[in-house]
Amino acid sequence: MSNSFGSRYRFTIFGQSHAPAIGVTIEGLPSGFAPDMEALGAFLARRAPGQGAYSTTRKEADRPEFVAGLVDGHTCGAPVTAIIRNTNARSGDYESLRRVPRPGHADYTAFVKYGPGRDVAGGGQFSGRLTAPLCVAGGLALQLLAREGVSVRASILSIGGQTEPEAIRTALDRAKADGDSVGGVIQCQCTGVAAGLGEPMFGGMENRIAQAVFAIPAVKGVEFGAGFAAAALRGSENNDPFYFDADGAVRTRGNNHGGILGGITSGMPIVFRAAFKPTPSIALEQDSVDLVSRENVKLSVGGRHDPCIVLRAVPCVEAAAAVAIYDALLESRC
Amino acid sequence: MSNSFGSRYRFTIFGQSHAPAIGVTIEGLPSGFAPDMEALGAFLARRAPGQGAYSTTRKEADRPEFVAGLVDGHTCGAPVTAIIRNTNARSGDYESLRRVPRPGHADYTAFVKYGPGRDVAGGGQFSGRLTAPLCVAGGLALQLLAREGVSVRASILSIGGQTEPEAIRTALDRAKADGDSVGGVIQCQCTGVAAGLGEPMFGGMENRIAQAVFAIPAVKGVEFGAGFAAAALRGSENNDPFYFDADGAVRTRGNNHGGILGGITSGMPIVFRAAFKPTPSIALEQDSVDLVSRENVKLSVGGRHDPCIVLRAVPCVEAAAAVAIYDALLESRC
Amino acid sequence: MSNSFGSRYRFTIFGQSHAPAIGVTIEGLPSGFAPDMEALGAFLARRAPGQGAYSTTRKEADRPEFVAGLVDGHTCGAPVTAIIRNTNARSGDYESLRRVPRPGHADYTAFVKYGPGRDVAGGGQFSGRLTAPLCVAGGLALQLLAREGVSVRASILSIGGQTEPEAIRTALDRAKADGDSVGGVIQCQCTGVAAGLGEPMFGGMENRIAQAVFAIPAVKGVEFGAGFAAAALRGSENNDPFYFDADGAVRTRGNNHGGILGGITSGMPIVFRAAFKPTPSIALEQDSVDLVSRENVKLSVGGRHDPCIVLRAVPCVEAAAAVAIYDALLESRC
Amino acid sequence: MSNSFGSRYRFTIFGQSHAPAIGVTIEGLPSGFAPDMEALGAFLARRAPGQGAYSTTRKEADRPEFVAGLVDGHTCGAPVTAIIRNTNARSGDYESLRRVPRPGHADYTAFVKYGPGRDVAGGGQFSGRLTAPLCVAGGLALQLLAREGVSVRASILSIGGQTEPEAIRTALDRAKADGDSVGGVIQCQCTGVAAGLGEPMFGGMENRIAQAVFAIPAVKGVEFGAGFAAAALRGSENNDPFYFDADGAVRTRGNNHGGILGGITSGMPIVFRAAFKPTPSIALEQDSVDLVSRENVKLSVGGRHDPCIVLRAVPCVEAAAAVAIYDALLESRC
Repeated sequence: MSNSFGSRYRFTIFGQSHAPAIGVTIEGLPSGFAPDMEALGAFLARRAPGQGAYSTTRKEADRPEFVAGLVDGHTCGAPVTAIIRNTNARSGDYESLRRVPRPGHADYTAFVKYGPGRDVAGGGQFSGRLTAPLCVAGGLALQLLAREGVSVRASILSIGGQTEPEAIRTALDRAKADGDSVGGVIQCQCTGVAAGLGEPMFGGMENRIAQAVFAIPAVKGVEFGAGFAAAALRGSENNDPFYFDADGAVRTRGNNHGGILGGITSGMPIVFRAAFKPTPSIALEQDSVDLVSRENVKLSVGGRHDPCIVLRAVPCVEAAAAVAIYDALLESRC
Repeated sequence: MSNSFGSRYRFTIFGQSHAPAIGVTIEGLPSGFAPDMEALGAFLARRAPGQGAYSTTRKEADRPEFVAGLVDGHTCGAPVTAIIRNTNARSGDYESLRRVPRPGHADYTAFVKYGPGRDVAGGGQFSGRLTAPLCVAGGLALQLLAREGVSVRASILSIGGQTEPEAIRTALDRAKADGDSVGGVIQCQCTGVAAGLGEPMFGGMENRIAQAVFAIPAVKGVEFGAGFAAAALRGSENNDPFYFDADGAVRTRGNNHGGILGGITSGMPIVFRAAFKPTPSIALEQDSVDLVSRENVKLSVGGRHDPCIVLRAVPCVEAAAAVAIYDALLESRC
Repeated sequence: MSNSFGSRYRFTIFGQSHAPAIGVTIEGLPSGFAPDMEALGAFLARRAPGQGAYSTTRKEADRPEFVAGLVDGHTCGAPVTAIIRNTNARSGDYESLRRVPRPGHADYTAFVKYGPGRDVAGGGQFSGRLTAPLCVAGGLALQLLAREGVSVRASILSIGGQTEPEAIRTALDRAKADGDSVGGVIQCQCTGVAAGLGEPMFGGMENRIAQAVFAIPAVKGVEFGAGFAAAALRGSENNDPFYFDADGAVRTRGNNHGGILGGITSGMPIVFRAAFKPTPSIALEQDSVDLVSRENVKLSVGGRHDPCIVLRAVPCVEAAAAVAIYDALLESRC
Repeated sequence: MSNSFGSRYRFTIFGQSHAPAIGVTIEGLPSGFAPDMEALGAFLARRAPGQGAYSTTRKEADRPEFVAGLVDGHTCGAPVTAIIRNTNARSGDYESLRRVPRPGHADYTAFVKYGPGRDVAGGGQFSGRLTAPLCVAGGLALQLLAREGVSVRASILSIGGQTEPEAIRTALDRAKADGDSVGGVIQCQCTGVAAGLGEPMFGGMENRIAQAVFAIPAVKGVEFGAGFAAAALRGSENNDPFYFDADGAVRTRGNNHGGILGGITSGMPIVFRAAFKPTPSIALEQDSVDLVSRENVKLSVGGRHDPCIVLRAVPCVEAAAAVAIYDALLESRC
């Protein structure tokens, strides 16, 4: 009802942070396609933890094992399933997590929805770890899109409100020193997308990309082209005039529309931004409730924390864009 | 594959601006429900054109005719279909629209996608007029949500970058006088929503609401709770602490999470904002292309224009929120 | 969640026997297609009532009005909606139908599912009349399939257990004279279907065709190729050997597989049969229950009855086959 | 787009006969459910090969490993994924299979659909082995249905046209001795199903069960209640009269309707039959084609063959019925 995305490039993600495995099953890959496993590994490595000073030290290889759908390294038409084993053992002590939900996390809403049986270890199915299988589906889509001349590139626009590298570094250092965290904004640009992808109304490219991007934990906003800034412009400023380019293609001067008009791609680059809230895991003491004793309590979350997940979220945004675009591309052929 | 929304409250919108009719078929309404037709009419009237100084003068009653699904004014379990006749006749002269796409509109992308056979009259299927059937589906959902204690209220946060009524009026007057247009931001607040609605990942409430809201023409951004502003906060600022309220309910101090954590409702009000670009229809001369002669041309769109669609979009945002929430509410009962 | 069919050629049927209208909304028609309305009318006429000695005398033109999706008689890319007005007025007296369910009809199950608010007039949404919009969707699919060289032809194999015209006529006359009814078997043959359509497992052509055909009221069995008879054969008898035909195509000697192997079309004609139970409406007195007084009662259904719906069901079977095949054809292009 | 089934109890099957693994991901299991793994194992054992004189000797434990969705043996709300490792190694020699399709198998249609990259080993994704994950999904549904008082029991009605145990045994022995195979008919009876499940038209219980059952390889026909025999009855014979039973429940005398009227369950047992063609794998020499040399050739399939798969298909039919019924049961609660 929820772990699946897409209509023609359709995949289902499964797993929890401390289950034996996480993974994904993908339908819609063309038969005879040989995924570049090295490129996929490099893509996955970009979101892997334990890479720098600002990410958690949990180290997992995150090497997907393809248990179905490949023959001699080539797709055969059957659904492709990749699993990634969780090597971090489930520790025995989650009693406090079970009783006291962490502010900003899904602990409380998971309790309401799934009851006492919910998986609390490491955030369970709400863990950011589930973006690894998203990146498997997205990484393969990126390879297929590259064959069509489509390139998807995300980058950090701001962290903690800062846009300059030096200021970002300072913001990160301070947050880390304070046992606190910061959020940020990631921008994604997709070039080479043919005009005519997407469907009207609920099937528009904005609808699809938003549906995919909001699946990344901590995303609280998505905007296309000029986005929220367009709301303060006049039509004469915001409208992107059409013209015939030297190669005979119709293009627009400016790209306030972010490559999408009426939900359909215009042939201009798709440009969108995603707002990430600061990671809710912080070392500082916070107020919360004890769901068992039904008292207000103080919560201190031990362990080391990632002061900013935005760094690792960049490939996830690319993956989300890629699956939405590739799905629409396949649909456009029907 | 695009004009449908929802899984348990599922509807399909049809029609074009100048087709004989527009309408909607809704599955998932409970049997024995008597829609309050007067309330629905009042809701639809809020988005109807021709109401004030700043909207187009096209006057259509927009009275839905329920051709299926009702017996003596009550739902009977069959899908409910309502059609709204388009009383504005299709005029013969769309030749220039067929040749020269209006900047900011879907004219060009529709040409690429559907070819010369596309419906150009009044924007065809991309017309804002298609929000009328959305409001039928949403208006009925609002009535059913009200029975569950859920209230959905949208309001204008800014127009043309202005937030004060006087400044907004001035911005609108100036845009109108200039033959130009302005955009704006609408905020929507949904109270009384039970905790536990929504699904993880792609089925989260943010994903669903975004999918519905981006179906409203001119929406270029959606954000929840603190939204893009959260990206500049620290975790200690953005996290909403839990506490037991006087009535024994778990609530949060602050609502930066906009009532949604991990895609699941927390019981706090759902709060989101949608950014509307300025309506692309302006009287000013614009640059465009002639798709037949393949020349760059100047375009002047005659007729009267709506300098700001944000005013009429308020009930559309409520409708979009309502269908997404009611659908999730039904799902939560399975 | 039930009135829709298909993934790429997707349609939703609405209406009840005595609602103001019945109809269908179709997504997935190619843009620029000009339906042959005369051919569609002729196709619909084959299922219309009041044609011969053995069908009910209710006379309705069943002329679909296309209220959306067409411009100057051509599809424009928007969903196509056709409605058919119900000209037979809703009479006031359905009290007995409301209390006493007719054996073999959906009266009782509709009561359980939809409660007292269900539409009992003329069978409500369970009426065979709802096959008219199915035939609109199917009739258009047939025209599009014809362009691809696909022909779909259904015919009566038996009525009342009789296969010879003379014996069938006698069986019909006797049933009519007795105030009784008879069932029958319809066979459908689809030629020109390319090899490779359909998907494995739940998306196989047998699955899809069965899903469509069981939507026709009174169908209680569907079999493909040798069908139930294959269960009594040996593999050496039932297997259809492959050979290269004179034109270089791979064909099979015999067609026990009914043109489908592993859910995928083989290029041989798709052959299937549907079993229709005798129409449950009979003039003879029957046992039933009074749902209000909760007593066992005798039921006599007045009015004239159709002694055999199989005659009118032939185009419905063609329509069901056509929508399933055309949907799979579109899918195969992704 | 084909390996998934269901709307509220939704699962996706993956794997090929000789891939590293086969498996299934299930959404819609209630949180806090502790599957009886012993019962599940016993259920799976009923379809496992190598059990008797008439089945292949390939021996695989078919023990599902639950890699996601369980915590301490209980569901936690996350999707449940089970994988079954294929222990039979992929042998190197499939050259003949790649060139010469076996009559009655999906070899040829898979070649057309997926091209040279298709997985030919052991039938690839079309292998009957894929019914093991179906039985995992079905086995869990059966346990949940049992809690609702629903019992699903399938049994062999005939094999090789014989209905008596002695005659069946003789038919099997002869087929085996001849290097040939036989088909059969399985009947399934589902008791305790509440009235009111299923939806009209394409969502009827017959449509759903047929969609599930036709996913089992070799099924060529499905009929409900009196099925094809009903086509030879009169309405007065086929209609099942209603009456109030001693316990106050409405029941029918006779069950020609197979527990389903208008697609909706009546509260009477659901009864249906599935026709299985003889397993296409036979030792006898057959005619086929060489897809590479494009010549007509003789084919002799070596190895040991299962003269009748009907014996092992019984739990598969129960699984198919269970997933369709449990899915409809969950839907009925929305």
